[in-house]
Amino acid sequence: MTSVKTNAKKQSYVWLDELSTKEAAVAANAGTVVIFPVGSVEEHGDHLPLCTDSIQPEYVAVEVAKRTGCLVAPPFRHGVCNAGRNFPGTMSIEFETLRMVARDVLAELVRNGFNRIIVLSGHAGSSHMVALRLAAQEVVKQSSPVSARKTRIMVLSDFDFAFEVKDLGFPETDGHAGAVETSRVMAIRPDLVKGKGKAGVMNVPRFEIVPDPEKYFEGGVNGDPTLASDAKGKAINAYVVEQVAKLVEELKCN
Amino acid sequence: MTSVKTNAKKQSYVWLDELSTKEAAVAANAGTVVIFPVGSVEEHGDHLPLCTDSIQPEYVAVEVAKRTGCLVAPPFRHGVCNAGRNFPGTMSIEFETLRMVARDVLAELVRNGFNRIIVLSGHAGSSHMVALRLAAQEVVKQSSPVSARKTRIMVLSDFDFAFEVKDLGFPETDGHAGAVETSRVMAIRPDLVKGKGKAGVMNVPRFEIVPDPEKYFEGGVNGDPTLASDAKGKAINAYVVEQVAKLVEELKCN
Amino acid sequence: MTSVKTNAKKQSYVWLDELSTKEAAVAANAGTVVIFPVGSVEEHGDHLPLCTDSIQPEYVAVEVAKRTGCLVAPPFRHGVCNAGRNFPGTMSIEFETLRMVARDVLAELVRNGFNRIIVLSGHAGSSHMVALRLAAQEVVKQSSPVSARKTRIMVLSDFDFAFEVKDLGFPETDGHAGAVETSRVMAIRPDLVKGKGKAGVMNVPRFEIVPDPEKYFEGGVNGDPTLASDAKGKAINAYVVEQVAKLVEELKCN
Amino acid sequence: MTSVKTNAKKQSYVWLDELSTKEAAVAANAGTVVIFPVGSVEEHGDHLPLCTDSIQPEYVAVEVAKRTGCLVAPPFRHGVCNAGRNFPGTMSIEFETLRMVARDVLAELVRNGFNRIIVLSGHAGSSHMVALRLAAQEVVKQSSPVSARKTRIMVLSDFDFAFEVKDLGFPETDGHAGAVETSRVMAIRPDLVKGKGKAGVMNVPRFEIVPDPEKYFEGGVNGDPTLASDAKGKAINAYVVEQVAKLVEELKCN
Amino acid sequence: MTSVKTNAKKQSYVWLDELSTKEAAVAANAGTVVIFPVGSVEEHGDHLPLCTDSIQPEYVAVEVAKRTGCLVAPPFRHGVCNAGRNFPGTMSIEFETLRMVARDVLAELVRNGFNRIIVLSGHAGSSHMVALRLAAQEVVKQSSPVSARKTRIMVLSDFDFAFEVKDLGFPETDGHAGAVETSRVMAIRPDLVKGKGKAGVMNVPRFEIVPDPEKYFEGGVNGDPTLASDAKGKAINAYVVEQVAKLVEELKCN
Amino acid sequence: MTSVKTNAKKQSYVWLDELSTKEAAVAANAGTVVIFPVGSVEEHGDHLPLCTDSIQPEYVAVEVAKRTGCLVAPPFRHGVCNAGRNFPGTMSIEFETLRMVARDVLAELVRNGFNRIIVLSGHAGSSHMVALRLAAQEVVKQSSPVSARKTRIMVLSDFDFAFEVKDLGFPETDGHAGAVETSRVMAIRPDLVKGKGKAGVMNVPRFEIVPDPEKYFEGGVNGDPTLASDAKGKAINAYVVEQVAKLVEELKCN
Repeated sequence: MTSVKTNAKKQSYVWLDELSTKEAAVAANAGTVVIFPVGSVEEHGDHLPLCTDSIQPEYVAVEVAKRTGCLVAPPFRHGVCNAGRNFPGTMSIEFETLRMVARDVLAELVRNGFNRIIVLSGHAGSSHMVALRLAAQEVVKQSSPVSARKTRIMVLSDFDFAFEVKDLGFPETDGHAGAVETSRVMAIRPDLVKGKGKAGVMNVPRFEIVPDPEKYFEGGVNGDPTLASDAKGKAINAYVVEQVAKLVEELKCN
Repeated sequence: MTSVKTNAKKQSYVWLDELSTKEAAVAANAGTVVIFPVGSVEEHGDHLPLCTDSIQPEYVAVEVAKRTGCLVAPPFRHGVCNAGRNFPGTMSIEFETLRMVARDVLAELVRNGFNRIIVLSGHAGSSHMVALRLAAQEVVKQSSPVSARKTRIMVLSDFDFAFEVKDLGFPETDGHAGAVETSRVMAIRPDLVKGKGKAGVMNVPRFEIVPDPEKYFEGGVNGDPTLASDAKGKAINAYVVEQVAKLVEELKCN
Repeated sequence: MTSVKTNAKKQSYVWLDELSTKEAAVAANAGTVVIFPVGSVEEHGDHLPLCTDSIQPEYVAVEVAKRTGCLVAPPFRHGVCNAGRNFPGTMSIEFETLRMVARDVLAELVRNGFNRIIVLSGHAGSSHMVALRLAAQEVVKQSSPVSARKTRIMVLSDFDFAFEVKDLGFPETDGHAGAVETSRVMAIRPDLVKGKGKAGVMNVPRFEIVPDPEKYFEGGVNGDPTLASDAKGKAINAYVVEQVAKLVEELKCN
Repeated sequence: MTSVKTNAKKQSYVWLDELSTKEAAVAANAGTVVIFPVGSVEEHGDHLPLCTDSIQPEYVAVEVAKRTGCLVAPPFRHGVCNAGRNFPGTMSIEFETLRMVARDVLAELVRNGFNRIIVLSGHAGSSHMVALRLAAQEVVKQSSPVSARKTRIMVLSDFDFAFEVKDLGFPETDGHAGAVETSRVMAIRPDLVKGKGKAGVMNVPRFEIVPDPEKYFEGGVNGDPTLASDAKGKAINAYVVEQVAKLVEELKCN
Repeated sequence: MTSVKTNAKKQSYVWLDELSTKEAAVAANAGTVVIFPVGSVEEHGDHLPLCTDSIQPEYVAVEVAKRTGCLVAPPFRHGVCNAGRNFPGTMSIEFETLRMVARDVLAELVRNGFNRIIVLSGHAGSSHMVALRLAAQEVVKQSSPVSARKTRIMVLSDFDFAFEVKDLGFPETDGHAGAVETSRVMAIRPDLVKGKGKAGVMNVPRFEIVPDPEKYFEGGVNGDPTLASDAKGKAINAYVVEQVAKLVEELKCN
Repeated sequence: MTSVKTNAKKQSYVWLDELSTKEAAVAANAGTVVIFPVGSVEEHGDHLPLCTDSIQPEYVAVEVAKRTGCLVAPPFRHGVCNAGRNFPGTMSIEFETLRMVARDVLAELVRNGFNRIIVLSGHAGSSHMVALRLAAQEVVKQSSPVSARKTRIMVLSDFDFAFEVKDLGFPETDGHAGAVETSRVMAIRPDLVKGKGKAGVMNVPRFEIVPDPEKYFEGGVNGDPTLASDAKGKAINAYVVEQVAKLVEELKCN
């Protein structure tokens, strides 16, 4: 097996589970980085689909894979939702369930030799992200002594990068289902954008744990989706892809 | 809201999470049946991809949705694997993890008013199926007293139907990655079939719980994939779609 | 300590917990195989006792022990029941409870040096058997690296053998509390057979997870108990004993 | 159904799981008290069998059932052991496992209408007893609002009564595998008494949680078994039976 | 009982568990708000004690209680630590442990009628805060239907307010064991401040989950403690007390 | 670092979490014993505060620390209550919660090198003590193979010593909130003693697990608090301090 052939194989697939068992062994031996996209089924206003948080990181992961030769694990399209959890259509899984799924997926990737991994979440709620981080922490801790090559896992939301793009004319407070998300979905799946949307604001209490956050979140939008455009979405997506690609390169290095 | 408009809306989407929050409310109110596809990331010989168990039920679910107006929930592409669990590329999650994911997904569907559900698994291992059934049992039990309309959940593997198709010239013992599965994948995703495959047999001990089942399962194929054909796959798939569509119609009735 | 004396000791007891601590140490050192019988407390028609699934494997285990010199661990007479779970008298434990009991019993046997074990269940429901298999899998996996002598565990239902006996004039569909079970109990504990029973059929839906399976299982009998006889029961039991004894001999070998 | 016929039925069986489903319904409707015997598999010196803690409460339960018409549930012959846990032959299950078994058994008895129960344990370690009490507490708490007739559960060790018998010439400090236990086993199963035993004392530290309690418990006997006699055992057993029978009568009353 | 007497009683104690059972009943009936302080045992540079995160919220809680008549529950001085978890002296408990402690404490307060609660944490790590919020969410959800008076729980870190004080001449990046924390401890427990401390910066990777965060956090200080002063600490503490007191008043209202 | 300097440092603090990270490292290296006080929030009659079980072991721990140079870990002031659990003000946590807190605290102490520990509980209920002992057992078992110096943990209630003091004129049956406890609190925190109290007796059934133990425990006092005196409390406390100090010295030795 030469590294040239290996590279050739790696480039022909983007999705890890489209490989055969032997192709997976080759990819793992070649040190291929894997991106694990995590999304949610969550209300995103009247204009965006429930899968808004899923299609953004999946788009980014596929583009990064095309560019860097990394692989994309089968996405997990469920998350722990908070403010939007009582809107119709939102499916919020238990904290512990997300943690166990992420732990099992990461542990099995590492067991297979894929020990350079990026967990890329389109949903960025704090409980959701903590579940992913605790899972990664457990796997990193357990795999430290056993692997010859150090296990390295990164956990991030693609919002961490998306909101770094400035000069788009969006207000600072833009958030859930706002101008950034609407622009990105317009660029990724325009067929799923159902009208222009309506500006709104999330007034969920700062400290109180309320059983009915939707009362403080009329319309389920935090920001002004009418400022969105396909072009802005493409610019944001390009930036996010570029940044995640850099992380992949960093994980390849040592 | 008239039922005509509702039907129109329902027919425009196949995937549940492509709906907006309001569209989801409409679909739930209309009593729309939901199919939840479950797969695995598992060795399927040298000729089939790791996602073999995922793409079969997803194909069936989408075809059934087109025909019946039901919706398809985001698939879960991980399973509890047994005989193939130590082959490269197989990612086997914990029994309890699968049970919790299925329970949360079903409970959230029911909470949203989608209380007629088919869990359609492409993987058919006994642990895997029991995890799904226990999850369904818990949700059925808990929702009985609260819902106005009775919650009804079916759990099946599409193998339950696929192996009912006779007169294909396949041996009785055909199984994992054999002629039936190979034919079906040839019909669904021919680009993922990597050669003709090689006949094999699974000799895992009948009763002993061995730590190394792969030693008794050389090649990871149980059956003769060389007997497969695209045409046979289409025939099998058509039969499975027809049978699952009947189940959807049954769930619609009362 | 000579092996002759060891054999002599082993033959004097059938039940593991009738040994003293020192006798247990001797038996473990001699590599004695242990059978762990598992039953249920479950409806078996009007003619058979709730302990029907318990007394069959216990009878087999004792007979095999007399013949092979293996030992029988204290039975666990509870199971995970499904179709019969709402009939009066059925006591169905949680899946997780059965799994933990089986895991603890197996782990403690192995810790004591009894690392060749047969889990012999009289109840054969799929959830029940999966709980036992997962427990065995966990113990086999964990004990692999530590024991000098390889841990080997088999998990089976005595139905796996009972229904292999042919030429008894029983219909193919015979099952729960039917002719086979009735015959076997007639041969083991005739005093517990309360009349001839009544033929019935289990019509529990193939795929739907119903909260009230008893509605589809009038009489709680699947088969025709009136075809049963003591002589047929003896023949079946003899066959099952012979087959399980072969498994014990196989476990003794290496 | 008249109460006379009910009584007749009840008296014909001692073991609950020897009833058929219909007989169980009758017994439950008649308010029959159930005793659930719990034992252990534990070292008891060189002269007593591992099942010493199991056969004592089972003997008592059967005798009480014969006298009072109560029923005996299938025994659970495993316990949480402490000082003797590292001796050969001892099988100690996890605290949580015992708690779950007891909870499931009690909850299923109550669900079946048997809501007057005595948990009678032959093992009396504090962890073991607490597991049983927590299980009973959970079931009592949950069943309070639902049952028409109040659920009442008692949890005790038969040692609570056995050591109340005085004037036997046994020292105050008699305990594990000592004169009382040896006498009782001599009276119940003389064939399992392997010699006279040897006096010993348990010097396990008062407060320290040691990993090797057997080092402080040479011989595994706390007391002087040579003082035991069959006649003394009969006297103790008779007293325990009488006391437990009184508890059954108390539970019958209201 | 008049409300005047009740008020009088309330004012005489600050700590909830210094009340007798009857006094607790009176306080609960009067609708008294309770603050539950949570801290950590965590490295805070060479100049601050491990209890830094505990004494800050406890100080605030006591001062608020004196001013508003609320009560302070016994503090829990352990937390889920991340960046500092491998420094000597840090004791980091499991996420699930913190969640269960907080859930039990909150549920027991509510069961006692204290259903207006502020969880005030001195540690502000995201895992730690999520554990507290999930606990509160569970209790709020479960108590909603049962209490006559609505259960209201707030969860916050006192950092949420401490870093709102401006014009102190501290850099924006001040954080763990920096100028704010050092000033506050100087004002609360000057005897526990061990020297001036040394400026440092936390360079833990933005996304990677590293097993050895201490390598990126030399000195365990994020900020410049040499800028701290007792006077600044007093000003910060006064502000935090004032803000938390406002929250108590808000909880009293309806 | 000389042992003289180490001793000097150790003597300046009593509470472990008042040390800085470096001071903690020094104390751990010096083999310093740690006392972990555990209490409860529980009804103690009308005359004693809810924190009665907390302040006794904390007082003892601090006095022992002053005398022996050991350290005191942050107390945990919650327990598993039984007979008093439904009185106003009692906060009883789940068995599993106490077990997890104790396990985490002990495991983290051991990880930090503090592997000689006394868990000193002011509450002495059997469930409560078993939770603490199981936690200690788990930590002792897991740390055995890894630590160079043997981990030693003791678990006790200070009642184990308090009731050894004789000649105080207290009846043998003195118990919860009785003369011993009242005397001790009078000596420790006289400001929290609210009157002389009233004699009472705990008549909770010997074996039955009742949902309403308070019905058998009018007044919540078991004994006669009117016999208490400050002087007797001082005598008892002095004896308990002396005994616990001996245990510390024993743990220091090897």
